[in-house]
Amino acid sequence: MSVGDAAAKERKILVAVDEGEESMYALTWCLTNVISPNSKDTLILLHAQAPRAAYTALDGTGYLFSTDIMSTMDKYHNDAADRLIEKAKNMCKDHVNDVKVETRVESGDPRDVICEMVQKLGVDVLVMGSHGYGWFKRAFLGSVSNHCAQNVKCPVLIVKKPKSNNLGK
Amino acid sequence: MSVGDAAAKERKILVAVDEGEESMYALTWCLTNVISPNSKDTLILLHAQAPRAAYTALDGTGYLFSTDIMSTMDKYHNDAADRLIEKAKNMCKDHVNDVKVETRVESGDPRDVICEMVQKLGVDVLVMGSHGYGWFKRAFLGSVSNHCAQNVKCPVLIVKKPKSNNLGK
Repeated sequence: MSVGDAAAKERKILVAVDEGEESMYALTWCLTNVISPNSKDTLILLHAQAPRAAYTALDGTGYLFSTDIMSTMDKYHNDAADRLIEKAKNMCKDHVNDVKVETRVESGDPRDVICEMVQKLGVDVLVMGSHGYGWFKRAFLGSVSNHCAQNVKCPVLIVKKPKSNNLGK
Repeated sequence: MSVGDAAAKERKILVAVDEGEESMYALTWCLTNVISPNSKDTLILLHAQAPRAAYTALDGTGYLFSTDIMSTMDKYHNDAADRLIEKAKNMCKDHVNDVKVETRVESGDPRDVICEMVQKLGVDVLVMGSHGYGWFKRAFLGSVSNHCAQNVKCPVLIVKKPKSNNLGK
């Protein structure tokens, strides 16, 4: 922040979090390097969850999964998302005491969800890891970070996890 | 910066500047949103200049340009680079009084120059506009920002100039 206006600005900083280590590193980096002390920044933790249709209702033998199994799978995915968001929230508390944190779990392709949320919430900075959401989708559809950098209108901070686990220096 | 360590950290922040408005906007955004007051941040302003070989020694009629004309063209390019860097330095002074500013003009393809400098100087954050260095090269070679985001190891902040000229809010 520039001299004098640190306390005056209100920024919405959206951090896209997924299961990968790199997104948690991006969050830590953001907390250490972007969030200002005594600022009115709001940190929005967003997790995009694959929609129900993304895991097929057919098992390997061609039999339909029962409703019970489907609802168990739904519950597993929802619980995993909750744990992930909780972990990210705790990281925020550990690093910065006074930042306002909001959380969102949205269903859909991360590319679409992140771009939509940035637009809808009027986000000022989007922060994300460079290799989120798995190598398989990335190989076929291109990286989520690349897509978002090209499509959102606000500044995008793409953070890579270095091989040594230090924060910048 | 997180609480307590704003004064302790020393970060090298490299801003890639070119002739486009967007790179100047990226610099302003960086000065307003990234540089911390009372920090030991060093801002490195880098301009990558097309090498001599990039403008042909043949004119449209097939005649070789004379040495005089070539040296005039060199001088024009060098002067333009100097003016650009001077403008960027003045913007830094206008926004933040106490930040240390270094400047570099390097010859070569911006993609290579930026990635090499980030590595060589041990940069902590790379800041750049999303559409620098002209539409023609971008159309054929892909955007400079995209290339750098994929190839440098440090976090990359890609800033787009919004249609309305406000800084984030």
